[in-house]
Amino acid sequence: MPLRVFEVKTPSHTAFVDVTEKVRSFVREVGPKEGLCVVYVPHTTAAVFINEGADPSVVRDIAYKLDQLVEWNDPNYRHLEGNSAAHIKSAIIGNSRVIPVADGELLLGTWEAIFLAEFDGPRTRRLIVQVIPVI
Amino acid sequence: MPLRVFEVKTPSHTAFVDVTEKVRSFVREVGPKEGLCVVYVPHTTAAVFINEGADPSVVRDIAYKLDQLVEWNDPNYRHLEGNSAAHIKSAIIGNSRVIPVADGELLLGTWEAIFLAEFDGPRTRRLIVQVIPVI
Amino acid sequence: MPLRVFEVKTPSHTAFVDVTEKVRSFVREVGPKEGLCVVYVPHTTAAVFINEGADPSVVRDIAYKLDQLVEWNDPNYRHLEGNSAAHIKSAIIGNSRVIPVADGELLLGTWEAIFLAEFDGPRTRRLIVQVIPVI
Repeated sequence: MPLRVFEVKTPSHTAFVDVTEKVRSFVREVGPKEGLCVVYVPHTTAAVFINEGADPSVVRDIAYKLDQLVEWNDPNYRHLEGNSAAHIKSAIIGNSRVIPVADGELLLGTWEAIFLAEFDGPRTRRLIVQVIPVI
Repeated sequence: MPLRVFEVKTPSHTAFVDVTEKVRSFVREVGPKEGLCVVYVPHTTAAVFINEGADPSVVRDIAYKLDQLVEWNDPNYRHLEGNSAAHIKSAIIGNSRVIPVADGELLLGTWEAIFLAEFDGPRTRRLIVQVIPVI
Repeated sequence: MPLRVFEVKTPSHTAFVDVTEKVRSFVREVGPKEGLCVVYVPHTTAAVFINEGADPSVVRDIAYKLDQLVEWNDPNYRHLEGNSAAHIKSAIIGNSRVIPVADGELLLGTWEAIFLAEFDGPRTRRLIVQVIPVI
């Protein structure tokens, strides 16, 4: 079955964990010549996005600006659990990304890496990776 | 054909309508063992996202913060229809989401629900649900 | 192979280029009765979104508000290349969109157009368009 559920530990309250190698290895193991790879987090205070993986200051700046736009403490939030900011960031970034696969490889750009974004950690998160082969 | 167009009435100017049961029922009817479910709104002032469905204060807080970030009245908007804020929120949230299907069921997390987000209602919106089976 | 890489020139620092006709023509050429079309940019300072294509003031207002929310010059950015704002907007909008295909045609709504969003141009960008047929 070309679908696997990984466990990913997130180390801090906000953390962007590079999962590119997990996804790439799984795609190679499934071995489609061509297809679509889906990366999905089944959580409502986490997200998935693709951006630069080489310089860690890029994802640091993404986290910084999201924190500034969606502040953690806003007296107008009503959700009693106190983590509304994490839900809002999850909805804005989105809980999945798709990546085309050709010649058996993810068609990621030179600087692209896939990140699981944690907005209310640290936790152990599930990450679903699925390959839809083109026959 | 594993594709269906639903009509969804949105009750107010901003409204997040839980469409999870519509999508779940359709996936069961199509009956793929495994595949990908696509949820798509063909509208430019609406969106689709996945987040917590149990406590309605979560989506209320998402709507509140989006309204604060993208205010309805900004004298610098140029689109004459006056609903630029709805277009901007639609572009930021995105007009679709995908959900993996395994053993015939949507792989939604415990707290996840699928929402059609209305940003310029009330209206009757179309919602396209498609299943891409893995053979 | 139902996948093609297009080159798209972006004319200015921020530019939203309508690529709808490129995508539509490719889908017709591939000729699936039904399927999913994936539009993906393998770049970390660009994005893909779907919104109104008829009135250019709509995408102008989207660009305006994104610039206001994610200002180009923020002394707290740490990425030394100086283009953190472009990376942040790319992560928020997302680097891909999917569109259902039925009866051989993209199921775009009346007002929907597909845009490659440039946030750090002008450049020549690659745009990957893929069709996943439903058999």
